Amino acid sequence: MLVQKYIDMLGAKSVIRDLAGKAAERGREIGYENVFDYSLGNPSVPVPDQINETMIRLIGTLDSRSLHGYSPNPGLPEARDAVAASLEGRFGIPYKRDHIFMTSAAASALAHAFRLVAEPGDEILTFAPFFPEYGPYVNLTGAVLKVVPADTATFQINFDEFENNLNEKTMAVLINTPNNPSGIVYSEDTVKKLADILRDAQKKYSHAIYIISDEPYREIVFDGKEAPCISKYYDNTIMCYSYSKSLSLPGERIGYMAVNPAAEGADIMVSMAVQISRGIGHNCPSSIMQRAVAENIDLTADLSVYETNMNLLYDKLTGLGFTVVRPGGTFYIFPKALEEDSVAFAQKALKYDLVVVPGDSFGAPGFFRMAYCIDTEKVERSLPVLERFVREEYGV
Amino acid sequence: MLVQKYIDMLGAKSVIRDLAGKAAERGREIGYENVFDYSLGNPSVPVPDQINETMIRLIGTLDSRSLHGYSPNPGLPEARDAVAASLEGRFGIPYKRDHIFMTSAAASALAHAFRLVAEPGDEILTFAPFFPEYGPYVNLTGAVLKVVPADTATFQINFDEFENNLNEKTMAVLINTPNNPSGIVYSEDTVKKLADILRDAQKKYSHAIYIISDEPYREIVFDGKEAPCISKYYDNTIMCYSYSKSLSLPGERIGYMAVNPAAEGADIMVSMAVQISRGIGHNCPSSIMQRAVAENIDLTADLSVYETNMNLLYDKLTGLGFTVVRPGGTFYIFPKALEEDSVAFAQKALKYDLVVVPGDSFGAPGFFRMAYCIDTEKVERSLPVLERFVREEYGV
Repeated sequence: MLVQKYIDMLGAKSVIRDLAGKAAERGREIGYENVFDYSLGNPSVPVPDQINETMIRLIGTLDSRSLHGYSPNPGLPEARDAVAASLEGRFGIPYKRDHIFMTSAAASALAHAFRLVAEPGDEILTFAPFFPEYGPYVNLTGAVLKVVPADTATFQINFDEFENNLNEKTMAVLINTPNNPSGIVYSEDTVKKLADILRDAQKKYSHAIYIISDEPYREIVFDGKEAPCISKYYDNTIMCYSYSKSLSLPGERIGYMAVNPAAEGADIMVSMAVQISRGIGHNCPSSIMQRAVAENIDLTADLSVYETNMNLLYDKLTGLGFTVVRPGGTFYIFPKALEEDSVAFAQKALKYDLVVVPGDSFGAPGFFRMAYCIDTEKVERSLPVLERFVREEYGV
Repeated sequence: MLVQKYIDMLGAKSVIRDLAGKAAERGREIGYENVFDYSLGNPSVPVPDQINETMIRLIGTLDSRSLHGYSPNPGLPEARDAVAASLEGRFGIPYKRDHIFMTSAAASALAHAFRLVAEPGDEILTFAPFFPEYGPYVNLTGAVLKVVPADTATFQINFDEFENNLNEKTMAVLINTPNNPSGIVYSEDTVKKLADILRDAQKKYSHAIYIISDEPYREIVFDGKEAPCISKYYDNTIMCYSYSKSLSLPGERIGYMAVNPAAEGADIMVSMAVQISRGIGHNCPSSIMQRAVAENIDLTADLSVYETNMNLLYDKLTGLGFTVVRPGGTFYIFPKALEEDSVAFAQKALKYDLVVVPGDSFGAPGFFRMAYCIDTEKVERSLPVLERFVREEYGV
């Protein structure tokens, strides 16, 4: 018999995918260049030439059995060493090979992290607005994702609601800064306060509570800043990283889980992850991709276009009177819709070939997400359309 | 708190890895060329040049955002189409794109297949001798792996024991032909009888019982034969395939799950697998590897060396009086040890720098596995050493 819980999931529609489908359909009618598709978070900047050059060099110089051969379960030693050295150099935390577990990008890092710390019935908290996949990612492990309502004024953390939701079943707090969908970067104050509350809760409930820090947008931060490194503020931190955005490599599925050396159990967590892999069918990311990133460990694609696009949109949106928190990073912006029903708002925008995603999917109804990982030229062409849309529909 | 069940697994030692470690250590003492290491099932023939040439061409010609971009959850349409057309052409079964789910090799295909058909508490049967990873692969889903004792005379199926073990909780039967560790290919008679028994059991228990067919060695078959295609004999078949062995690409993690179009639920199983992926952190195999195999869909490495090695070993072993079933494929042979305790037998072999794996790990104590995916020259050099070992230790 087929397992019913997966059949039951088939009915549910993804709003984002549905909108992307509509955008594609409209694109076939009027030319995709005329559809202002802000629905999908797909990197739009090219992969750096060095990655492709490294791959070609590896294919040309390494013995094929070695290049394409099995890597040990936690990943290639040279890849783990490169990640550890880079993190240590950058954040001053003594990561070593044994703290690094190479994964098939962030989704896989998260799948391991959840299973490290939570069993069926345990709770993992996250903060709205949040990446909607966190729901099935966590709930299908048997643990329960609890969503703390958003602080809609700042999209930092709503600490009162957070403390209301913490309890003895909380085994981890899942954070995502820089954040999808808000573009917000948690301030140092936010991270410090989060860490203080969790240290108190650990004492109160007499067990570790881990921060699982999902950081695919870590390198996309604006105004020359850096996102606070969570492990600096809280020992029990598991970092989940992906090269999907920083190197525009989402299809190659390459990333890692990095355990803070100061975490409780840091010496065994990567070995535990190897056991977890056996149950979920993970057996290392692609060998050639592990080598390609290891040899270009501090490289990023030219991410500056995202900041350019953000500024264009932010200035236009505020000029039109939108309430919007200025993004500190990512390639998302999350303004308040001009009516309470953000689904209706997004539907009206569609008539102008503007594709935006209602905030309901992200646990923040009344807002909408624009993913501006598109060409700047297109962002520019979309601005007068955005203006016409809000003038005609909302008399702004 | 860290999850205890994974901590508990850390103590268990892998006999195979332990032996491989000893072989490597001995290799550092006397030179690895002097250690006859038959422990590990790592492909030894080179990756076909066409694969590397295709990868270089893809990197040189495709836009990097397209080449390395996200593929849809079930895999790239062109890869799924290529797999379906190849299977249809070869086996005459009308596989279409919707029956194909691209995976990170066979481990990942199996992880999806188990979750499609079995819930915690359900049973999945397999037949000894079997790949030891099946234990954690199945048991960590919450389902239970039940092992049917071997027919040690033929390493086909022990049908009496099979029928004793079948019950209303049996949701799937996991088979592996050509088989690791025995090298045996199930005969057409075996597959027909298996299918007949399962069809009766489906009626008796009023629910589907699926065959999950793990086929990483499908292309390594000797004497110019082909392994029977299970889907031809049994509708409810889920095929799990890997290019790790056929193309010597184990590190690149590329394979697929193919649902028999005649299976109950064939129209929704790939969509269900997409849901399963969300829970286990799988998001397609590497894009470039999907394209590389799709463009070389019926290619294999030069696998003939494995048959050459098998014949050398089989002739020598039978000449020395070993009881051994002649392998029909794979790169394994599984003779009866010369004493009841095959662990002791393997220990004695180690003194001669011969590394073989006791059958206990595979659910068949008293036998031992030799993985002859090594250079033929080394196999030839090992034969007089094998002879000296059995003469000195067992007076043969």
